[in-house]
Amino acid sequence: MKLAILTTGGTIEKTYDERDGSLGNFHSILPRMLSTLRVPDLDIGYEQVVFKDSLEMTPTDRRRILEATERALRTADAVVILHGTDTLAETGELLEKSLGQLSVPVILTGAMRPYEFRDTDALQNLTEALLAARLVLPGVYVAMHNRVLRFPGVVKDRDRLTFSKP
Amino acid sequence: MKLAILTTGGTIEKTYDERDGSLGNFHSILPRMLSTLRVPDLDIGYEQVVFKDSLEMTPTDRRRILEATERALRTADAVVILHGTDTLAETGELLEKSLGQLSVPVILTGAMRPYEFRDTDALQNLTEALLAARLVLPGVYVAMHNRVLRFPGVVKDRDRLTFSKP
Amino acid sequence: MKLAILTTGGTIEKTYDERDGSLGNFHSILPRMLSTLRVPDLDIGYEQVVFKDSLEMTPTDRRRILEATERALRTADAVVILHGTDTLAETGELLEKSLGQLSVPVILTGAMRPYEFRDTDALQNLTEALLAARLVLPGVYVAMHNRVLRFPGVVKDRDRLTFSKP
Amino acid sequence: MKLAILTTGGTIEKTYDERDGSLGNFHSILPRMLSTLRVPDLDIGYEQVVFKDSLEMTPTDRRRILEATERALRTADAVVILHGTDTLAETGELLEKSLGQLSVPVILTGAMRPYEFRDTDALQNLTEALLAARLVLPGVYVAMHNRVLRFPGVVKDRDRLTFSKP
Repeated sequence: MKLAILTTGGTIEKTYDERDGSLGNFHSILPRMLSTLRVPDLDIGYEQVVFKDSLEMTPTDRRRILEATERALRTADAVVILHGTDTLAETGELLEKSLGQLSVPVILTGAMRPYEFRDTDALQNLTEALLAARLVLPGVYVAMHNRVLRFPGVVKDRDRLTFSKP
Repeated sequence: MKLAILTTGGTIEKTYDERDGSLGNFHSILPRMLSTLRVPDLDIGYEQVVFKDSLEMTPTDRRRILEATERALRTADAVVILHGTDTLAETGELLEKSLGQLSVPVILTGAMRPYEFRDTDALQNLTEALLAARLVLPGVYVAMHNRVLRFPGVVKDRDRLTFSKP
Repeated sequence: MKLAILTTGGTIEKTYDERDGSLGNFHSILPRMLSTLRVPDLDIGYEQVVFKDSLEMTPTDRRRILEATERALRTADAVVILHGTDTLAETGELLEKSLGQLSVPVILTGAMRPYEFRDTDALQNLTEALLAARLVLPGVYVAMHNRVLRFPGVVKDRDRLTFSKP
Repeated sequence: MKLAILTTGGTIEKTYDERDGSLGNFHSILPRMLSTLRVPDLDIGYEQVVFKDSLEMTPTDRRRILEATERALRTADAVVILHGTDTLAETGELLEKSLGQLSVPVILTGAMRPYEFRDTDALQNLTEALLAARLVLPGVYVAMHNRVLRFPGVVKDRDRLTFSKP
């Protein structure tokens, strides 16, 4: 199966700068995350579209994500997008509205705690996104915390620190 | 969602005895594994049915697994079974043949490397089994290494150290 | 051996707040760090003296650290102090000047990367501080990165991200 | 500082064979262990002398360890030896008796739980051995679990799973 992974940064890919003690989207660690998973039948291509905290995403950034998704959809059997959780739902709604009739799934995911931390949920969520990419019907979804929720109508639940569909 | 997890031991739950340097199915670490995952909407009940290396499973053990699965199916929305990989396929075939018409999924999983090790595939596989339990149609499956394969006809691929359906 | 550990916060004990994505000195994780080490012959008492990024330490904070060290020295066979690295040397110089003739070692340590991160140096440094506390002559030291350097004259080497004594 | 590390195998370096589920001394992981530590001022050379469970060590193996130690002592400022704990004390006694007047320390260490496991004591013990190599007087020692004990007279305490000097 041919899978395209687009990364846009966000909490899941934040790393630590020992010089100034800051946590930020400095460089993608997606290859490192993927190297810890066993996915013998996935043919993965990945692309860094934008790379930032999703609170700082501009309309231009979101349009670039849309365009990169459209390009990836031409050849991939599924698309997974790593995204900051704060505005993930906004991007999900845009993709759902703009992509038109899909023939494969588009799965957004991210993390509440960066991959670099003990007790991160990054690998769980990435694992779930990669599996949902194989199992769900065409559509735009967020996969996180043992749920796969379909857009439109998905929101970040800031109390429970997860996504839900009210 | 109400999920029943049955553990039967196997590699995934092998732990280390510092007194004699042996690796074995000494006690279940399923609660510990689950505590590292975020599954806010799962109502999980679990039961230790047998607890051994699956090479040592007897017909009686397998019958007990079948009976425990039947009991769990009365109330659960899905059943996940932890199992040693060496004879997982044998148990899967038995369940598929014996359970009759299912109304929910039964997902077997395990690991090639115990949870206790760095570089284990245990959490990936457990994560996948818990998600497959939500997503697939009724039937008996193995979930492992980014694939969900339906019985009958699944075998352990001893060269690639994973499961496949030839 | 009776060991007093004083924590003052700093990078080593920074944790992550999933609500706002910040990294800070929110609560001490010293008991958790210690629980991962095997120290069968240490009788450890610990105390949180102040708890902050060491760049924010005031003269009052440093006086409280000095006083807590003096109290600990009355009963302990050695004192270990967790401290942010940015002003660790300043506190070390103060202790060296103010404590007078010591009869046991006082060991400062910290980390360039918080304990909560993969690839942290926190456990290495804590391990080294706890061992140095047993092995070195009375005096004030920093233990970090396989070195035990005695005050006065120790400085943070901001290029190599460690401590040195020029 | 020039440090020679000799590895002889033992629990600390046991790894897992996914094909047959066994745990053994298959290949050295010392470079991997060292890569997780920060030792900016150590110039490390290492050599695999023998590589086995220390219960299987023969007199010939122990003589080879003695000879490799003698060679290393010609150029190194300290020697660290990784060794299985079951007969570490026997090797320690032999070294202490045979090496004659030492001008630098020789530090044996090992682990009760292999490095490959979560909750291993391997990194703690290796960290302690590397620091003891800098701090102690010439002699033959075991460094483990926050203690550095000098031969002769050190024994494995099989009840407490550590070393002691009665």
